[in-house]
Amino acid sequence: METCLSPAAADLVTARPALVALDWGTSSLRAFLMDARGGVIAERSSNRGIRHLAQPGEVGFTLALAEIAGDWLGQWPGLPRVASGMVGSAQGWREAPYVDCPADTGVLAGRAGRVENALGRPLLIAPGLRYEPAGGAPDVMRGEEIQIAGALAMQPRWAKRACIVLPGTHSKWAWIEDGRITGFRTYMTGELYAVLRGHSLLGQLMSEERAEAGVAAQAFADGLARARDSGPGDLSHQIFATRTLGLTGRLPAAALADYLSGLLIGHELVSALAQRGGRDDGEVLPLVLVGDAALSRRYAEALAAFGRTPAAQLGNTAPQGLFRFACAAGLIDEPALAAS
Amino acid sequence: METCLSPAAADLVTARPALVALDWGTSSLRAFLMDARGGVIAERSSNRGIRHLAQPGEVGFTLALAEIAGDWLGQWPGLPRVASGMVGSAQGWREAPYVDCPADTGVLAGRAGRVENALGRPLLIAPGLRYEPAGGAPDVMRGEEIQIAGALAMQPRWAKRACIVLPGTHSKWAWIEDGRITGFRTYMTGELYAVLRGHSLLGQLMSEERAEAGVAAQAFADGLARARDSGPGDLSHQIFATRTLGLTGRLPAAALADYLSGLLIGHELVSALAQRGGRDDGEVLPLVLVGDAALSRRYAEALAAFGRTPAAQLGNTAPQGLFRFACAAGLIDEPALAAS
Repeated sequence: METCLSPAAADLVTARPALVALDWGTSSLRAFLMDARGGVIAERSSNRGIRHLAQPGEVGFTLALAEIAGDWLGQWPGLPRVASGMVGSAQGWREAPYVDCPADTGVLAGRAGRVENALGRPLLIAPGLRYEPAGGAPDVMRGEEIQIAGALAMQPRWAKRACIVLPGTHSKWAWIEDGRITGFRTYMTGELYAVLRGHSLLGQLMSEERAEAGVAAQAFADGLARARDSGPGDLSHQIFATRTLGLTGRLPAAALADYLSGLLIGHELVSALAQRGGRDDGEVLPLVLVGDAALSRRYAEALAAFGRTPAAQLGNTAPQGLFRFACAAGLIDEPALAAS
Repeated sequence: METCLSPAAADLVTARPALVALDWGTSSLRAFLMDARGGVIAERSSNRGIRHLAQPGEVGFTLALAEIAGDWLGQWPGLPRVASGMVGSAQGWREAPYVDCPADTGVLAGRAGRVENALGRPLLIAPGLRYEPAGGAPDVMRGEEIQIAGALAMQPRWAKRACIVLPGTHSKWAWIEDGRITGFRTYMTGELYAVLRGHSLLGQLMSEERAEAGVAAQAFADGLARARDSGPGDLSHQIFATRTLGLTGRLPAAALADYLSGLLIGHELVSALAQRGGRDDGEVLPLVLVGDAALSRRYAEALAAFGRTPAAQLGNTAPQGLFRFACAAGLIDEPALAAS
């Protein structure tokens, strides 16, 4: 377990804890001790994701919570506790069923799951979101809806109208109007990359060593360009062609992974920017990148190749989202705007 | 090793062998004893693909050839011997480098590889084909060019203008004009299906048991329809959505594989039919399916959903292609047209 104090509130003596917030996913658990204005006083992380509990069921969840935040709960037993992520799935501590779009933090709070537990006050778990476009297939998210709430809290003008992009194993593009998530779309870009790299004939050609920076950047840009010029259905041809570029020596083995990364991220951008993420009534919709800094930089580079500049690149906005969720649930008072 | 006599020439006594033809791929080896008019007298298959030789190098290739056709070579030592497939790759018996499109059997014969060996007459190996569209990435085939030659030999009117489709792990679409392969495009549809089924979160949802026929057919059709309506870059979203259809119970676990198959084959069709495989000068280009019967039927069903009917579904046309290759190389006389 790693612990660190937030640089903004290094002096735990002067900060008054107001909330324990948990970002509890499949493979990891993060805990945040937050003050009454939404500032992070301290944060910790462990590998006790819901698939890696020390014991199954109720006991495993209780132990994981005690392990990461037991001292906080002991010292400040009155603190409210909230959580988001896969802890609210059917495989989690308590299922908080998906809520349909459009939704805001008020809707999420109204449909939260509540877990009575042996560690004092109940834990309130945010539900996931479901979106089903007319004539389309249903799409789901769980955890990202809280990160989005955090992003909107950090800059209220994005709440009016924006597209929040969360790159990752299953990248999410979420469209915001008037403070609500009105729809979203998932791309399995990261998983497709990992599966092709680990288990395809193309992956076998890729070398362990990575190309030097200039060569890698060029290969990434070439993959993006190929994606930008693609037509419907072209992806499986272009993945095969990536292998041929390697076999014929056009691309060094060390740069194939970067080319494939550019190709797959490029396809995601081609599709997502053709949705509501594109130009809207002649005005460009602000794109806000949320998540891991290195991956966000990669997406920002890719967006630049498509002529777009993100309005911002944020890190993990889950604590801010969990804070808003706790406010919406009435567990803590909404801070005065001037103070937030 | 399996041996069978061709029903068309069951009486080995009356048929006069004129050629030993080998279809020698990565995982299997097929041998055909052929008569002077291109008929198959007998055929055999073994698992001695170039990756499964009993010994490495020269010795392994020689042993495999002796094992599958040693008696033929002993009984008729004067017979010419030809081969196609991965046996001519850099990992094969002798590399026969790729030839550029456009090409016909004459070009293939002119660039063949020749292996002197311990079993008598040299073995002539067909080269593979390379195609690089303007502004595109290079594409390659090895083995399919001979199957295509066989298909064209079976129905010379397709040689004028047609599109030959060879479904498989790496599906090939080849465009024919005036007897030559003028270009082609590979889709890694089969490999993508296998990799997703075996190694993705979507694959984990799929059950071992298959849905009953009606449910499976509907799921396949639904996947095709989803592909038909897709825009550029949509594939990774649609694969994720397949998983969501399973998680939300919209599609039974037993039908997810059929839906994914429809989705991936559909994407291949969307892309390939938008190439030269589409309508041409107001006239529909004949589509000829070549290869495994069950897979060809599946592609014929898929084409029907796109409003297209294949002109023919052929089986393995490699022996006919190898026969034409041997004729073009001057190893045997071209049979009179009336006799073919």
